Amino acid sequence: MLDQQVEVVLEKLGQRTFQRVFFVACGGSLAVLYPAKYVLDRESATLSSEMYSSNEFIHRNPKSLGKDSLVVLCSLSGTTPETAQAAVHAREAGATTVAFTEDLSSPLGTQAEFPIQFKWGAENDPFTSNYSLLYQLIFGLLNQRGEYGKLDEVVAGLQNLQLLFDRAKEQYHQNAADFAAEYKDDKVIYTMASGINYGIAYSFTTCILMEMQWIHSHVIHAGEYFHGPFEILDKDVPMIILLSLDETRALDERALSFSQRYGKRLIVLDAQDLNLDGVPSAVKGVIAPIVLNFILRRYAEELATARNHPLSQRRYMWKVEY
Amino acid sequence: MLDQQVEVVLEKLGQRTFQRVFFVACGGSLAVLYPAKYVLDRESATLSSEMYSSNEFIHRNPKSLGKDSLVVLCSLSGTTPETAQAAVHAREAGATTVAFTEDLSSPLGTQAEFPIQFKWGAENDPFTSNYSLLYQLIFGLLNQRGEYGKLDEVVAGLQNLQLLFDRAKEQYHQNAADFAAEYKDDKVIYTMASGINYGIAYSFTTCILMEMQWIHSHVIHAGEYFHGPFEILDKDVPMIILLSLDETRALDERALSFSQRYGKRLIVLDAQDLNLDGVPSAVKGVIAPIVLNFILRRYAEELATARNHPLSQRRYMWKVEY
Repeated sequence: MLDQQVEVVLEKLGQRTFQRVFFVACGGSLAVLYPAKYVLDRESATLSSEMYSSNEFIHRNPKSLGKDSLVVLCSLSGTTPETAQAAVHAREAGATTVAFTEDLSSPLGTQAEFPIQFKWGAENDPFTSNYSLLYQLIFGLLNQRGEYGKLDEVVAGLQNLQLLFDRAKEQYHQNAADFAAEYKDDKVIYTMASGINYGIAYSFTTCILMEMQWIHSHVIHAGEYFHGPFEILDKDVPMIILLSLDETRALDERALSFSQRYGKRLIVLDAQDLNLDGVPSAVKGVIAPIVLNFILRRYAEELATARNHPLSQRRYMWKVEY
Repeated sequence: MLDQQVEVVLEKLGQRTFQRVFFVACGGSLAVLYPAKYVLDRESATLSSEMYSSNEFIHRNPKSLGKDSLVVLCSLSGTTPETAQAAVHAREAGATTVAFTEDLSSPLGTQAEFPIQFKWGAENDPFTSNYSLLYQLIFGLLNQRGEYGKLDEVVAGLQNLQLLFDRAKEQYHQNAADFAAEYKDDKVIYTMASGINYGIAYSFTTCILMEMQWIHSHVIHAGEYFHGPFEILDKDVPMIILLSLDETRALDERALSFSQRYGKRLIVLDAQDLNLDGVPSAVKGVIAPIVLNFILRRYAEELATARNHPLSQRRYMWKVEY
């Protein structure tokens, strides 16, 4: 059964017609939206979709934004000024706006036409998380349009997220600690992924390594790797390589195989190693990135502890004007 | 007057209807296509457009790819296997394919329905370059659809590219040498941009710094900067900041202003400093990135000389299997 809020929003969306979807947010929240674009690309013959950082969206102001557009926004606190402003901008253009936020009374929560409240933090059932509610919305929308037949399977998978997280925590506990011990003194750590995993790799690079740990990093697309970035690889360069279960796995495997020949310091997170029992087979590929993202957070926590650099430490964010 | 090849292709395209454009290439060639997406976003209410690295495009296999799709591909040599394969993939799906390459007899040149030959290298008039012919195609397409009224101005600007390059070379000669002297020993150099400049920043990061100089780097979107990456900035971190003339300039200015407060090692390339006489005012914003890209290449050449690391040096590309 779908989340009640999502159910209500889907009913409203069903009364409108859309041709374009814009996913709009900043930083980690933008990364959260990434798999939804992947899913729309894969499953919808009738909806095009694009992703923009909020201020780029406002200033670029795509000419096709209008009545037939659905704009999906996200901000944990709902106070990200550009994202709240993007909601206003989209509504003024006649678009339908759906916003995911923890706080319905926030600027984003009040300025979007259809706000959806998600819960964040280990004390909440991840069925109520941003990823879960976003998936319910997007797969629900596809289902409504007759473009996807496995909505029940997706929901069943999402309902088991807590179980998947608990298992993954145990399975990767030692790996996360080993990662932290090995890489705590490195100045540069790359992350690489393709397809549905690209968003979580982007998030780990920009929000964890750069923002929270002040470690130099770059998210490398596994397909682009061979057209420039792979020249940076040598036996000393640390590289986190994510492998998906989905259609672009061949790209990840090629990148890994090359890196194993010429690199020595690879951290491999392969969705095939996950215990996804409880997730219907047909939808394991779309659920896996949510679990990998959970594991990456454990890696981040261990790294922060080993470096004595708390994940909450900032020099600028929320502290100075910008 | 448009390039003769582009003229012929536009006539053919005019007999078909399109709703979606896919820009598909790898590495530096993908970066070349970036401004075209920006332009379509800004000017077309009827065409959606997306960019994919070639192998991601093939494996993701967007469901909307079909008869109403125009797929624009690019590869200098035309031998990039994924890009040639992407052309085949797109044609099999019923899409129209236009490919930019230096070699019409290459796999890409022979496998795309409409190949367009561009010239590369300082000995050729840049009116025949990849950027120029791409601009002629995209603005020509918009003009044909009644969505753009300044095609003649764009062509006039492109016809003056050689003059703009000659001037820029003189204007930035010393700056390029100073850049190389100052940063030749750095292990990490970031690049930052937004809007129409994002592609050239991506190209400088991945093809020049990572591929050709083995310097760690990351292309930072100026809007995303404040949602993670800016925490990496301190007085020692080198950062190249590009400023455009276009609609997203406000993002660049905000990023620069913050970086000037907390950073010390900024390399600023501002399109406002360019002498663009000869380019009609209304289209300076779209011509500027081609000139900035030329200047970045001069910076790259000076850096390579100062580091005694030729731009042609590779450890893997074209040398080992991958």
